[in-house]
Amino acid sequence: MERLRVGLIGTGFMGKTHALAWRNLRAVMGDGPEVLLETLCDQPADKAARLAEQFGFARATGDWRAMMADPGIDVVSITTPNNLHRDMALAAIAAGKHVWCEKPMALTLEQAQEMEAAARAKGVVTMVGYNYIHNPAFAHAVRLVNEGAIGRIVHFRGWVDEDYQADGELAWTWRARLADAGLGALGDMGCHLVSMTLALCGPVASLVADMQTVHDTRPLPDGSGRAPVENEDTATALLRFANGAHGSISTSRTAWGRKNKLAWEVHGTKGMIAFDQERLNELQLFVNEGPKATQGFRTILTGPEHPPYGQFVPAAGHQLGFNDLKIIEAAAFTRAIADGSRPHPDFTAALDFETLIHAIATSAREGRRVEL
Amino acid sequence: MERLRVGLIGTGFMGKTHALAWRNLRAVMGDGPEVLLETLCDQPADKAARLAEQFGFARATGDWRAMMADPGIDVVSITTPNNLHRDMALAAIAAGKHVWCEKPMALTLEQAQEMEAAARAKGVVTMVGYNYIHNPAFAHAVRLVNEGAIGRIVHFRGWVDEDYQADGELAWTWRARLADAGLGALGDMGCHLVSMTLALCGPVASLVADMQTVHDTRPLPDGSGRAPVENEDTATALLRFANGAHGSISTSRTAWGRKNKLAWEVHGTKGMIAFDQERLNELQLFVNEGPKATQGFRTILTGPEHPPYGQFVPAAGHQLGFNDLKIIEAAAFTRAIADGSRPHPDFTAALDFETLIHAIATSAREGRRVEL
Amino acid sequence: MERLRVGLIGTGFMGKTHALAWRNLRAVMGDGPEVLLETLCDQPADKAARLAEQFGFARATGDWRAMMADPGIDVVSITTPNNLHRDMALAAIAAGKHVWCEKPMALTLEQAQEMEAAARAKGVVTMVGYNYIHNPAFAHAVRLVNEGAIGRIVHFRGWVDEDYQADGELAWTWRARLADAGLGALGDMGCHLVSMTLALCGPVASLVADMQTVHDTRPLPDGSGRAPVENEDTATALLRFANGAHGSISTSRTAWGRKNKLAWEVHGTKGMIAFDQERLNELQLFVNEGPKATQGFRTILTGPEHPPYGQFVPAAGHQLGFNDLKIIEAAAFTRAIADGSRPHPDFTAALDFETLIHAIATSAREGRRVEL
Amino acid sequence: MERLRVGLIGTGFMGKTHALAWRNLRAVMGDGPEVLLETLCDQPADKAARLAEQFGFARATGDWRAMMADPGIDVVSITTPNNLHRDMALAAIAAGKHVWCEKPMALTLEQAQEMEAAARAKGVVTMVGYNYIHNPAFAHAVRLVNEGAIGRIVHFRGWVDEDYQADGELAWTWRARLADAGLGALGDMGCHLVSMTLALCGPVASLVADMQTVHDTRPLPDGSGRAPVENEDTATALLRFANGAHGSISTSRTAWGRKNKLAWEVHGTKGMIAFDQERLNELQLFVNEGPKATQGFRTILTGPEHPPYGQFVPAAGHQLGFNDLKIIEAAAFTRAIADGSRPHPDFTAALDFETLIHAIATSAREGRRVEL
Repeated sequence: MERLRVGLIGTGFMGKTHALAWRNLRAVMGDGPEVLLETLCDQPADKAARLAEQFGFARATGDWRAMMADPGIDVVSITTPNNLHRDMALAAIAAGKHVWCEKPMALTLEQAQEMEAAARAKGVVTMVGYNYIHNPAFAHAVRLVNEGAIGRIVHFRGWVDEDYQADGELAWTWRARLADAGLGALGDMGCHLVSMTLALCGPVASLVADMQTVHDTRPLPDGSGRAPVENEDTATALLRFANGAHGSISTSRTAWGRKNKLAWEVHGTKGMIAFDQERLNELQLFVNEGPKATQGFRTILTGPEHPPYGQFVPAAGHQLGFNDLKIIEAAAFTRAIADGSRPHPDFTAALDFETLIHAIATSAREGRRVEL
Repeated sequence: MERLRVGLIGTGFMGKTHALAWRNLRAVMGDGPEVLLETLCDQPADKAARLAEQFGFARATGDWRAMMADPGIDVVSITTPNNLHRDMALAAIAAGKHVWCEKPMALTLEQAQEMEAAARAKGVVTMVGYNYIHNPAFAHAVRLVNEGAIGRIVHFRGWVDEDYQADGELAWTWRARLADAGLGALGDMGCHLVSMTLALCGPVASLVADMQTVHDTRPLPDGSGRAPVENEDTATALLRFANGAHGSISTSRTAWGRKNKLAWEVHGTKGMIAFDQERLNELQLFVNEGPKATQGFRTILTGPEHPPYGQFVPAAGHQLGFNDLKIIEAAAFTRAIADGSRPHPDFTAALDFETLIHAIATSAREGRRVEL
Repeated sequence: MERLRVGLIGTGFMGKTHALAWRNLRAVMGDGPEVLLETLCDQPADKAARLAEQFGFARATGDWRAMMADPGIDVVSITTPNNLHRDMALAAIAAGKHVWCEKPMALTLEQAQEMEAAARAKGVVTMVGYNYIHNPAFAHAVRLVNEGAIGRIVHFRGWVDEDYQADGELAWTWRARLADAGLGALGDMGCHLVSMTLALCGPVASLVADMQTVHDTRPLPDGSGRAPVENEDTATALLRFANGAHGSISTSRTAWGRKNKLAWEVHGTKGMIAFDQERLNELQLFVNEGPKATQGFRTILTGPEHPPYGQFVPAAGHQLGFNDLKIIEAAAFTRAIADGSRPHPDFTAALDFETLIHAIATSAREGRRVEL
Repeated sequence: MERLRVGLIGTGFMGKTHALAWRNLRAVMGDGPEVLLETLCDQPADKAARLAEQFGFARATGDWRAMMADPGIDVVSITTPNNLHRDMALAAIAAGKHVWCEKPMALTLEQAQEMEAAARAKGVVTMVGYNYIHNPAFAHAVRLVNEGAIGRIVHFRGWVDEDYQADGELAWTWRARLADAGLGALGDMGCHLVSMTLALCGPVASLVADMQTVHDTRPLPDGSGRAPVENEDTATALLRFANGAHGSISTSRTAWGRKNKLAWEVHGTKGMIAFDQERLNELQLFVNEGPKATQGFRTILTGPEHPPYGQFVPAAGHQLGFNDLKIIEAAAFTRAIADGSRPHPDFTAALDFETLIHAIATSAREGRRVEL
């Protein structure tokens, strides 16, 4: 593979992030294919045209089906609202394109399963946008766990909170409707935490969960009254991992003051590692080594010793940002395309994340332990 | 009440803390009864004698039943291992003495209920040693919640972790045997978290829980093999509060690096408060007020504005310590004795804490939701 | 100005950062000129060619004088070692090109003055690479100060530390020679702190300073012995600002564990603001407002309320990185080119920074107060 | 020495702290002399009587000279305003009593010298109230430095800030008059920082300094106008240590939000230690050891491994408070009385601290380097 012709659908938060990742992949990483920004798709078409010019795409379209049919596109990024993922991904797969899709994969588990099966059948390379697991600090944590630095994993706790729905008088949007958004906090944020949890602790065997809607209704934007919020504002689950460890994860989109509080701690028989995405360039490590009088949690600042940090800045402590993580993710995706391997997480792995968040919702709704 | 004649049973960690609290109560607080340190009880008797001299007690004994029968004692502090609390408390109550008992109240819920009933029947004043809720920072948090500073409470999370059982090769002790210790992490630490949780969020309506024993066996101290660990190293519960809020609490005694990580966050519709006992003089407060550009969690350092901090030091930020909290607790107890009111938590309130931790254990053992 | 044709000299740490900034300026900001990456210059030429391809430049050269003479270049970025800045900047200015030069401006104050005079005479737009002052968190701090949020400024403290020269057995390099590097820690890092100090507190009237070389000699890389370190490892100055406030600044390149500890606190008559570049997305603010019991330093997480953060990510707390700051800097530079205004800091403003760090060195060497 | 009969002068902030320290010394430490609280002195006498009863002193007086003449007193604590220290200490020394005097020793250096000479001539044991250096965390830091854990000391920075004079409209008090208070921030807080600085880095050879008065005048309490503030609100000094290291220290009593910000960092050739009194149970340690990828500052929580912490609480992380440090200080004093050794800091050592803060004031006033 010498060059990769990219089509991107969506120009919002994640659309811009994908555009920047594609733009910078080779400039930052110094290897990999030549990336050609071919087509940017959004509606209306003039918006797509304006942003194509801004982001550096060769052309724009308002017709995503046309883009999927374009033989001049090798790979598509899908960053549209969740309820569009399935159709777009299936069309891209059918056209033999590699697919980089934002999380969550789809509205329902059935849709995600359908997408996964289609991709596997067609043999295209897929990836889902779990950018936080590409943080060099996180990769270092996984490495430490795998090397046994904290011994056998025995316990885990994780949280992921934001406050974008904390204000009860915020207007009702599609995010509040099951048919449009699917899950609430679990789909928006919980799946990110799940992607980290599984990488650190391995698969979950069973769980029990609970969830709540903090603000039952929200005012309609047109002032015509209030409409119900149909999905969860918070969810919490007790996990039993296949390896015998226990754990818990929790998410809230109504947590005032939290902006990206994706935090966790993994307990081992020899030590502990803790992390907080709001300080994404730091890792906390405690190891039961050396004299007790000088033991303590150490704050590791990410640096060139945590690849590929050094591709961005050659000096430790200078800090990566949110958009940088997406470049690392793009690199993992394109490497997999180049060598025919499976990137992490492809649709198959991401389906495990979806399965877990839907199991949480099922357990919460039905009030029973769910086996996985 | 002009003076209070004190008997203290136990001279370990909590025994010394009670002795210091009694010694300093009046000197620090400047009011309340004259406290007379009458009798210190421990075994063997020469140890009691030595420590009576050190702590400033007038006399010592190795016979706690004799102390209970002594008409020259008004109030007793019970700081012995958990399996002795019941008999000692019942004897003290029967003798008409006021009782300050360390937590947890007893090995089993039935014992705690028996103690509570006896105290109520006899009309003595009782208190259980939940020192952390007497922290001025915590009292301020409760005040903020009650004043509505963060709105309606909608979610809660709490943890309490230490690492005193994290080392799997630590020798087996009575702490690992149900018959001697009752609950594990829940009884040692979990009940502290419960005391805070209920003060912030009100009563729990129902819960589901899970628990695990991280180290199944431990080496016997005499080298003769290994013995089983019969109680939980970790426990986690999903709570539904009577007011409709959800929450979760978790505890581990095998959490490397955690020394007294009793931490929680309470989410309201207008803000959030967070706390960490490892920084016991700090409170984190976020309120959705003022321009977004200057919002943020503020770190409040405890000071004279948070009574009775000023009784210890007249300047903010100079910090209280663990033993200081016990003096505040003693003040609450003696004020209640003086005015015939109920201190918090007396045996009746503490029974709610016990009920909750035993409900967690029951839910975990039986795999079902427990209503309270 | 509809388009800007860029030449970049240097491909190291700062070279790559400039290349990425130019690449992303329009894609991120959504306005401003079309940026054309014309020529990348470095030696040897094949390295320049390889990196031109990686960074996306149209061509490469090993001959910087040729690039300066190229009428197809509008603006040059100079990111070479300090001892080359003067000649390159003068050549660019002579050719009528706008110049973006990395800090410090030059080896000596005389060189910097020469550069500033030339730029002024020629009327080109210049800018010096003080990226940290373009951090939205810093801009917010300056805004708060200017709005009087913390009252009249009365005191200041700042530090900037790294550990890249902390190891005494690290090999000797050109950085240790006055003739090649000019100042040591002051030139590498101190000037960054100065750029922030002056923005917060205004001009310095006079100062006294001290400096030291921690490691007097270093081993030569060829094993032939040791060579002297001729410039300072640390420097500290007592400042008197023109407005009457006092302050101090300090820098060390031998501070183990510090990776980018560019931190300061500015004291006002109504409050305080503090900042630490190692947590570049956070600002600490204390204001003497509201009840004492809830006062405290608040941690403000940068977000869309702190422009142009929202150009990178629309959600607060998602974090900018080091390279993002350079894009904001590029935007300031190109806006100035477009509207003919002076960006901050241009050569004239940056000369003030240079003047200050050289005054510190002079005061330290001569042991006397230096008026500015 | 089997028992120690104590007289205490003063019942304010420090008076109560001394009373509590004497009360608890033996109960906490478990060894040392029996402490008899004989006489409490303050004016008016009825206040002394009331507080004697509260603190547990056998009797009270309003006449400090009478107390000094009392042969039934072995040791006196002096906690009165600074302008009374000299006369009281000299009287106590003349009467052959051991003296524990609060800092600063006196209003002027001459007074301090007189006190030191008198004590030395009489051969009594003396101590000055530098409680912060008795913090187990600080003792551990000194131990680490002395053991070479961070190599040779090369740099130091320290600050000590509070905000008790930050409000410019706070009423004028005796603290603002040279004749009553002597130095300002230097005497109140700067000397504490000096006590730590010298313990970590050894003696200072010379210094240059600057100081300022932030609020020139303050309103008189009777509303009759404003009176001048005669001493410094802030002071900062550049230090050269005898061992060749450089450093700086700074203090402000007008630093909004700081409550007890006594913080420092000591830089060595192998690592760094940092400390902040507002988190007095934590020590930050960086050592250049092990793989770079896991290096970082570690937060050491004080525990039983840092004696005499274990005398207060047997479990790490449970936290000492401000008043606890005074008990450790009392233990050092009484041990020295018992074995005839010199405690640290006695009047001779504390005179070094006084000398240093007065040298700072001299350098600032006269605008010249001061050799020590």
